[in-house]
Amino acid sequence: MKELILTLLEAKKFGEARKEIIELNEVDIAELLGELEADYAIILFRMLPKDTAVDVFAYLSNEQQIDIINRITDKEIKHIIDELYFDDMIDMLEEMPASVVKRILKHTREEERILINQFLNYPENSAGSLMTIEYVGLKKEMVVKQALAYIKRTGIDKETIYTCYVTDDNQKLEGSISLRKLVISDEAVAIGELMETDVIYAHTHDDQEKIAQLFKKYDLMILPVVDKERRLTGIITIDDIVDVIEQEDTEDFQKMAAIIPSEIQYLSTGVVTLARNRITWLLILMISATFSGTIIRRFEDVLSSVVLLAAFIPMLMNTGGNAGAQSSTLVIRGLALGKIEISDVLRVIWKEFRVSVVVGMLLAGFNFLRIYFLEGMDVYISLTVCGTLFVAIVFAKLVGGILPIIAQRLKLDPAIMASPLITTIVDAVTLIVYFSLASKIMGIV
Amino acid sequence: MKELILTLLEAKKFGEARKEIIELNEVDIAELLGELEADYAIILFRMLPKDTAVDVFAYLSNEQQIDIINRITDKEIKHIIDELYFDDMIDMLEEMPASVVKRILKHTREEERILINQFLNYPENSAGSLMTIEYVGLKKEMVVKQALAYIKRTGIDKETIYTCYVTDDNQKLEGSISLRKLVISDEAVAIGELMETDVIYAHTHDDQEKIAQLFKKYDLMILPVVDKERRLTGIITIDDIVDVIEQEDTEDFQKMAAIIPSEIQYLSTGVVTLARNRITWLLILMISATFSGTIIRRFEDVLSSVVLLAAFIPMLMNTGGNAGAQSSTLVIRGLALGKIEISDVLRVIWKEFRVSVVVGMLLAGFNFLRIYFLEGMDVYISLTVCGTLFVAIVFAKLVGGILPIIAQRLKLDPAIMASPLITTIVDAVTLIVYFSLASKIMGIV
Repeated sequence: MKELILTLLEAKKFGEARKEIIELNEVDIAELLGELEADYAIILFRMLPKDTAVDVFAYLSNEQQIDIINRITDKEIKHIIDELYFDDMIDMLEEMPASVVKRILKHTREEERILINQFLNYPENSAGSLMTIEYVGLKKEMVVKQALAYIKRTGIDKETIYTCYVTDDNQKLEGSISLRKLVISDEAVAIGELMETDVIYAHTHDDQEKIAQLFKKYDLMILPVVDKERRLTGIITIDDIVDVIEQEDTEDFQKMAAIIPSEIQYLSTGVVTLARNRITWLLILMISATFSGTIIRRFEDVLSSVVLLAAFIPMLMNTGGNAGAQSSTLVIRGLALGKIEISDVLRVIWKEFRVSVVVGMLLAGFNFLRIYFLEGMDVYISLTVCGTLFVAIVFAKLVGGILPIIAQRLKLDPAIMASPLITTIVDAVTLIVYFSLASKIMGIV
Repeated sequence: MKELILTLLEAKKFGEARKEIIELNEVDIAELLGELEADYAIILFRMLPKDTAVDVFAYLSNEQQIDIINRITDKEIKHIIDELYFDDMIDMLEEMPASVVKRILKHTREEERILINQFLNYPENSAGSLMTIEYVGLKKEMVVKQALAYIKRTGIDKETIYTCYVTDDNQKLEGSISLRKLVISDEAVAIGELMETDVIYAHTHDDQEKIAQLFKKYDLMILPVVDKERRLTGIITIDDIVDVIEQEDTEDFQKMAAIIPSEIQYLSTGVVTLARNRITWLLILMISATFSGTIIRRFEDVLSSVVLLAAFIPMLMNTGGNAGAQSSTLVIRGLALGKIEISDVLRVIWKEFRVSVVVGMLLAGFNFLRIYFLEGMDVYISLTVCGTLFVAIVFAKLVGGILPIIAQRLKLDPAIMASPLITTIVDAVTLIVYFSLASKIMGIV
């Protein structure tokens, strides 16, 4: 597709290029524009039918949006601003430099400008920053026929009309009614009799992670958002929540891999930013790994008597680290999904203890067979290595299970806090046990 | 809440207990039942109004569903079966033992039984296993008024009525129309003139991961599913996709932590299962870590001359491992989200190379200052350690960036394949470089 369009553009066959692209879905057009050079992208963008152009605009990256805003006329800007859904506009403005925001706000009406400023002030990642104001508001006294007529008249500008919200004269949320219920109900019944009154809602300052959990728990499609006085201020739709879930999970992946999370995508992030996001934690982990070095140096005598001991250090440390990571990952994920609570700490400890004893015995046993019989090591070394391996696995699994819960309890991020601490603690304990056991068993002073 | 209900039940104040719980949301009732003993749970369940009971049933765990099916009368089973949405019923049947399935199927009509068997035969995690048959089907020739009347008549039994699908006489998908468009359009216009014809759809055998990506890419709420002849067979709604996304991400977390993925939740998984899911990969990783041991033993002479070298092995191996994990996590996540393609391999290599050189130089420099000046090590050891550190970081980042893409290319799972191989390769190379450099720089033979 891209090649075809490019050829047409280079041959200045604009009419044909237009015919090809307007057949596409808006998302695909936006993707295509993202792959073209800026000059060609703007030519294509201006050839789109007005309404398609607005939809395509909403799917472009921020850099491209800025680029287009800078190149089009005021009249074209005004059309985009008028037609863009409110939450898409806020998303866009949040990412733009002040000069561009100014140029855009010039085209909005006074009252809209006040609203925009209010929305731009909600904390990042809060319900307020996710919501849109374009919902259908009904009154209890309306009958179904009136409500449907009202929706028919105003629905075209709403983000969704599938759930309508009922408010009192002070704008307080009283209930909700689905379009489905309206469509299948008798035309003469009052909304007040049909509406659901136990509506699940969020507050403007709730964090997006909490919002996502509400959506998942209650299988919601739309969630109303209220202010401190329980006045309806907006709605959040599930398509925005799918992005939130993906983003939160991506952040957890990044944190657990010791990267400072970033919302920007890998391929479009610069080298310096990538390096900066990674170096902080690498440095912390590197310094904490020097503890292990210090311990080895304290046991230098033991090591010089039996240099062979060094050969098993990587295996012991890796296995301990992996065993701990297994436990901490399960617990961190369970905490993130709300499936493990802080109060479950004793159940987690008991479970990890039993699992680790089973796993530890099997692996230590297997290792003994391998080292003693296959590699022909002497029995003391074999016993030292396998004893340490067992202790390391049990200890790593307990620490891996408990630390994330403690972090959560202290309101620290389990995904960030857990992994470096676990590695440091497990490594240190493993080495101390190893060398102590070695000097005991082999009688080295 | 749980305590209150329990007190009421123990005091046999069933009426009051009923009054308390029917105020709750169905999801919360199901959660409450899950926390009570089976005997109490069944008492409460039978007290629910019939329609609420069906909704609550859909949210119960499979064990509880089986328990309830085993304790209620045939008439009660029939009511649940009649009212349950088709996809919820399939989900339930997929998890139940054959004897229970038989008892349930007894209560379905012949034609329904055939359909159920067809659905149970779709591959697990395919579009077919996710979809429901309860959609609104319209014809091109209908006018808006007829369509709305039809929806009003049949809508109550549909999973969603917000997007309706238009099919020809052979059931082939021709287009879609939203309820929104129906509600805001003129009553006399034909559906054929209003419908969208470029409908995005999936095939019954498409994998759920592909389905989730379609939903995310096109911001869909509902996706129609067709068979090989492009006949409409069902629809998938976004609430099921939210679960899929969560499940796929959880699986990736588990794989990257070297655990065999399991859909069952941590707290309800048995110790033996947990141990089994973890031990396979721990064993593989443990064996691969013995390669490092073999390398250390090959360089035993170097190590016995300068035992101090052992003190830096943990730091070098950890930092290499962490640097590699950072890169592989970003690339694996990018591949999973479809933001990195196999064809991007050269861009990834070039980016990782530059990032790793920056990160490697800074960390090696920092380490030199620390080892040489702070710890007062001799300059040869300091140079050996820092030189190795630099090579390890650059090498780890390249391997971490490339291996997941190669795994994807070979149609292996990047999340499973990448991490053990990366650790093994990086550890081995780091140690070989370390000892070779040491013997070169310090002149040990």
